[in-house]
Amino acid sequence: MRASRFVLHAAVAAASTLSTAAFSQADNWYPSPYGPADQRGAANRITPQKVLEAKNLMTRGTVYQLGQVYESAMPLFGTRHFSLKIPQTFGPFGANDLWFHDEVVSGELGQVGTQFDGLGHIGIGDTFYNGNKRAEFSKPDGLEKLGIENVGPLVTRGVLVDVAAFKGVARLDASYEITLADLRGTLERQRTEVRSGDVVIVHTGWSSLWKVDNTAFGATSPGIGLEAARYLVEREVVLVGSDTWSTEVVPNPNSDLAFPVHQLLIPRNGIYIFENLRTEDLARDRVYEFAFFFAPLRLKGASGSPANPLAIR
Amino acid sequence: MRASRFVLHAAVAAASTLSTAAFSQADNWYPSPYGPADQRGAANRITPQKVLEAKNLMTRGTVYQLGQVYESAMPLFGTRHFSLKIPQTFGPFGANDLWFHDEVVSGELGQVGTQFDGLGHIGIGDTFYNGNKRAEFSKPDGLEKLGIENVGPLVTRGVLVDVAAFKGVARLDASYEITLADLRGTLERQRTEVRSGDVVIVHTGWSSLWKVDNTAFGATSPGIGLEAARYLVEREVVLVGSDTWSTEVVPNPNSDLAFPVHQLLIPRNGIYIFENLRTEDLARDRVYEFAFFFAPLRLKGASGSPANPLAIR
Amino acid sequence: MRASRFVLHAAVAAASTLSTAAFSQADNWYPSPYGPADQRGAANRITPQKVLEAKNLMTRGTVYQLGQVYESAMPLFGTRHFSLKIPQTFGPFGANDLWFHDEVVSGELGQVGTQFDGLGHIGIGDTFYNGNKRAEFSKPDGLEKLGIENVGPLVTRGVLVDVAAFKGVARLDASYEITLADLRGTLERQRTEVRSGDVVIVHTGWSSLWKVDNTAFGATSPGIGLEAARYLVEREVVLVGSDTWSTEVVPNPNSDLAFPVHQLLIPRNGIYIFENLRTEDLARDRVYEFAFFFAPLRLKGASGSPANPLAIR
Amino acid sequence: MRASRFVLHAAVAAASTLSTAAFSQADNWYPSPYGPADQRGAANRITPQKVLEAKNLMTRGTVYQLGQVYESAMPLFGTRHFSLKIPQTFGPFGANDLWFHDEVVSGELGQVGTQFDGLGHIGIGDTFYNGNKRAEFSKPDGLEKLGIENVGPLVTRGVLVDVAAFKGVARLDASYEITLADLRGTLERQRTEVRSGDVVIVHTGWSSLWKVDNTAFGATSPGIGLEAARYLVEREVVLVGSDTWSTEVVPNPNSDLAFPVHQLLIPRNGIYIFENLRTEDLARDRVYEFAFFFAPLRLKGASGSPANPLAIR
Repeated sequence: MRASRFVLHAAVAAASTLSTAAFSQADNWYPSPYGPADQRGAANRITPQKVLEAKNLMTRGTVYQLGQVYESAMPLFGTRHFSLKIPQTFGPFGANDLWFHDEVVSGELGQVGTQFDGLGHIGIGDTFYNGNKRAEFSKPDGLEKLGIENVGPLVTRGVLVDVAAFKGVARLDASYEITLADLRGTLERQRTEVRSGDVVIVHTGWSSLWKVDNTAFGATSPGIGLEAARYLVEREVVLVGSDTWSTEVVPNPNSDLAFPVHQLLIPRNGIYIFENLRTEDLARDRVYEFAFFFAPLRLKGASGSPANPLAIR
Repeated sequence: MRASRFVLHAAVAAASTLSTAAFSQADNWYPSPYGPADQRGAANRITPQKVLEAKNLMTRGTVYQLGQVYESAMPLFGTRHFSLKIPQTFGPFGANDLWFHDEVVSGELGQVGTQFDGLGHIGIGDTFYNGNKRAEFSKPDGLEKLGIENVGPLVTRGVLVDVAAFKGVARLDASYEITLADLRGTLERQRTEVRSGDVVIVHTGWSSLWKVDNTAFGATSPGIGLEAARYLVEREVVLVGSDTWSTEVVPNPNSDLAFPVHQLLIPRNGIYIFENLRTEDLARDRVYEFAFFFAPLRLKGASGSPANPLAIR
Repeated sequence: MRASRFVLHAAVAAASTLSTAAFSQADNWYPSPYGPADQRGAANRITPQKVLEAKNLMTRGTVYQLGQVYESAMPLFGTRHFSLKIPQTFGPFGANDLWFHDEVVSGELGQVGTQFDGLGHIGIGDTFYNGNKRAEFSKPDGLEKLGIENVGPLVTRGVLVDVAAFKGVARLDASYEITLADLRGTLERQRTEVRSGDVVIVHTGWSSLWKVDNTAFGATSPGIGLEAARYLVEREVVLVGSDTWSTEVVPNPNSDLAFPVHQLLIPRNGIYIFENLRTEDLARDRVYEFAFFFAPLRLKGASGSPANPLAIR
Repeated sequence: MRASRFVLHAAVAAASTLSTAAFSQADNWYPSPYGPADQRGAANRITPQKVLEAKNLMTRGTVYQLGQVYESAMPLFGTRHFSLKIPQTFGPFGANDLWFHDEVVSGELGQVGTQFDGLGHIGIGDTFYNGNKRAEFSKPDGLEKLGIENVGPLVTRGVLVDVAAFKGVARLDASYEITLADLRGTLERQRTEVRSGDVVIVHTGWSSLWKVDNTAFGATSPGIGLEAARYLVEREVVLVGSDTWSTEVVPNPNSDLAFPVHQLLIPRNGIYIFENLRTEDLARDRVYEFAFFFAPLRLKGASGSPANPLAIR
């Protein structure tokens, strides 16, 4: 039985005339603090010092893979697909009787499964990170600005925020909004802090539905709301990730808003989002601080990247 | 102008009756030393100790990306392809006027551009790593054994072997076989040694032809021959990589053999191959030892993985 | 909500030691009557005379399209997919401000939606039409024999067999086997006969589930069984089609057999199968005889072809 | 050796301020004569009478396929691709030992190889056929208006215009503009006329470069210019096709214009274009009038369709 697919929550399409002034006001969010030509956003916060800070967290030599397995049975958003097929084996070649396999893959590769959202992924109207206008860089053969190939390596301190453990549950409820109090409470309980240049990953337990109930997995999501997201912006993080498909709460409690945390983080603040991470091993081992290693595949002009990032303790 | 493509060298298809006994004899190369069920091969050599050995090489906090940019203009082998297109922008959603991009990608994804060859990639006749028979695991929806999702993280000491510098050239000649003497001479000149569990990457300068002359790039390749490869097998490395599409010399000086180094490393010894790495930054900075970080995308049942591995000093 | 997908009926995988002698006996079904090199099978039955016989059925100038719409929401078999996306518009070009669209499509194109099964689609063990052995022609870059590009045009007399009307129902029941008596009864009721070189299309009403209940549509199918199929073989038809995904009854009443009608028609007799045809317009207008026009897309080395065949009255 | 690819002629991108008033003036080309909601354009000209007119041309029962073979070695425009791979064979199923093949295909399917251009393919600025604005119908999951699934069957009288024979050459020169005098002269020589509702196919001999010199094939093209195109518009044809990739002369003699004939025919007049047809058999047999049969694949929301149309005499 094939996985069912997410549907854009009804609220998402419900454009509204309701005032959302506090969120949508034109508050001079560009040019970016890294200059009007910058395409890397918060990745600029990662310095050699942060790399060495990460290094010092590698005390045991234990390596965690944070990427899910890519397969056609995984939950998929909207009309996206993922297909992998093994062609007939090529061969024989040479007196040494060589045969080889390759694979034909197709899909929305930066936006299926474990996925890293780049700065070209999300716009506010026609405007993307650093004031880039859609018509100027969004081209059929690849984004001509803000493509994922510009991001570069993200090697820094990582923090796991196990909100599920803080709330005493294995899995947060559908559409549960992680509040600022939850975030602060969890960090306090874990005795971890969030610093400038960090990667913050939220464990919700939601991925226990992965391939178990894809319809439920994609229909809604627990996650951070605007309040918690603003706190992370203030802490100057580089990216926010989680074990859900959206990282943010879906639907937003304000039913007029569609993925507003995505807009706050990506275009307004150049902060990356990582979705569908495997966080259960870190949560199980209570690894709340770790060295984080990732660089997107350099897919020219892509909006995102598939991934298998590493957390090392 | 579109890149031309590699052709399988004529010699490759020239099956011969010449004795290749020294190479092809059935010398009991399976079951593997890691047991008859093992699917990870030389990755088993990476211990927490190797991770910590790698850590200690991170002294400056300098991070190098070793992956090339993926684009349709890159050189491609045979009839393989790589296509990335940006669909019409999705939107608007919500009162917050959200728009988003994704990308449609297709191609032989584990075997184009920077590519990590898994243990399911290469066979000797019908037999693959650990004695697995092709008919038993090679299925249309993915390899049912030896798929790339089994490899896991490779975090270990990395060694760059700058053979071009040793030979005093910017780029080794077409079809130049890197001999054992070259390998030893380079290591000695660099004052580096190869240890069990290391990753070894050979810099040939060949990638200066990348997107400059794709036809020449793919027609032949300098690289290690069987003699140098046997040395690396004896040193118990985990993987051998380079800045060429083949890592090994093509065509092989023994014109009866097609990619014999691939067979020696992958099925016989469970040692991985990394192709089309970007090595010029490491070579320029004379970074001959580094911490190496990579984990394949967990593409279920794939023969290989696209990559952007990291080298940190 | 995404369409669910067919599953191979449990029985299909249940290899059995039961005697199926009557069906599987090696009864010298190759070489073909058209010679040992033939790749067109029953298409050889279409002569200029058949074309002119078809012509004479065009009395009103009414044209019927028999192809379904291809879209990702259609029912799909197993892990097959169909994806169509419109890239960002290309432009502007020239002082005349030209812009253009194209589309990126991926999928198992000859075997999704309305599909024409070629002679390379189905084997009995390793043996395909005209005794061709799988290992000899089934290559990664396309079937080297029996590819769909060899079929050529099929312009001939077409016959609709409206079994649903004969049985007095809008839709035959799930897994209903159309018997020889049904076939004969329907033809008699319609006052139509089947002649050598004809195309026969069976209307079951099953396609009323298309995109309405994809799970039910693909879980089983009404269709002809071996008895009715043998009759059509004797009548020397060129192809058998229907408005179901299988044309034949699924599961077969003999639960040891998987798609035995496919084997009887395609490899044994070189008779083509057409699946997921739109037959409701013909049935509504009681068009039981018509001129049939189709030629597969010449997809080199493909097993089948997508289609929008025409029936003209 | 892989086929090289077309490049957009330099002139194409050279937007100019030169007056092109005669061509580009806003001369009230919409709504269409078929009403403001029409999506079929000149296909509306095909009546049952035209179908019967076609029928009467079927005197011999000879059927010609007009589609080229689709394969990765064919010439391709820009960054378009075509990939077809045969996955590992599926099986075995049942006591009857059933095995089957399918194929994974990807590409810009309505715009590679033999291709039928629909009314959503070409715009004049933001405006497409019948005044449709790009932003309103051009969506990621398919064109929401003017998609190829709206065209329906084209069964009508076809006319071959063998301009190469008229000029006494096997192949027209690169960038040769077929003038009105050429068109008229050819028709007179052939003793054929063009009538309302006809399909007109121009034989240039250019396809003799197909797979022989793909670079030359795609670099330029002989074809009709604006003058000849206007004549065909006046004759009220349904489509204009040819054995070239562009049907029209490339580059246009007015170097400021990019594919102006496409704009004249498709958005302004709802007349379809058919490219990369195989016309040599018709030319060889001097079949200047024939019954033409084609219906696009009903690819929901596509700009065009792959094809293997039939000409019957």
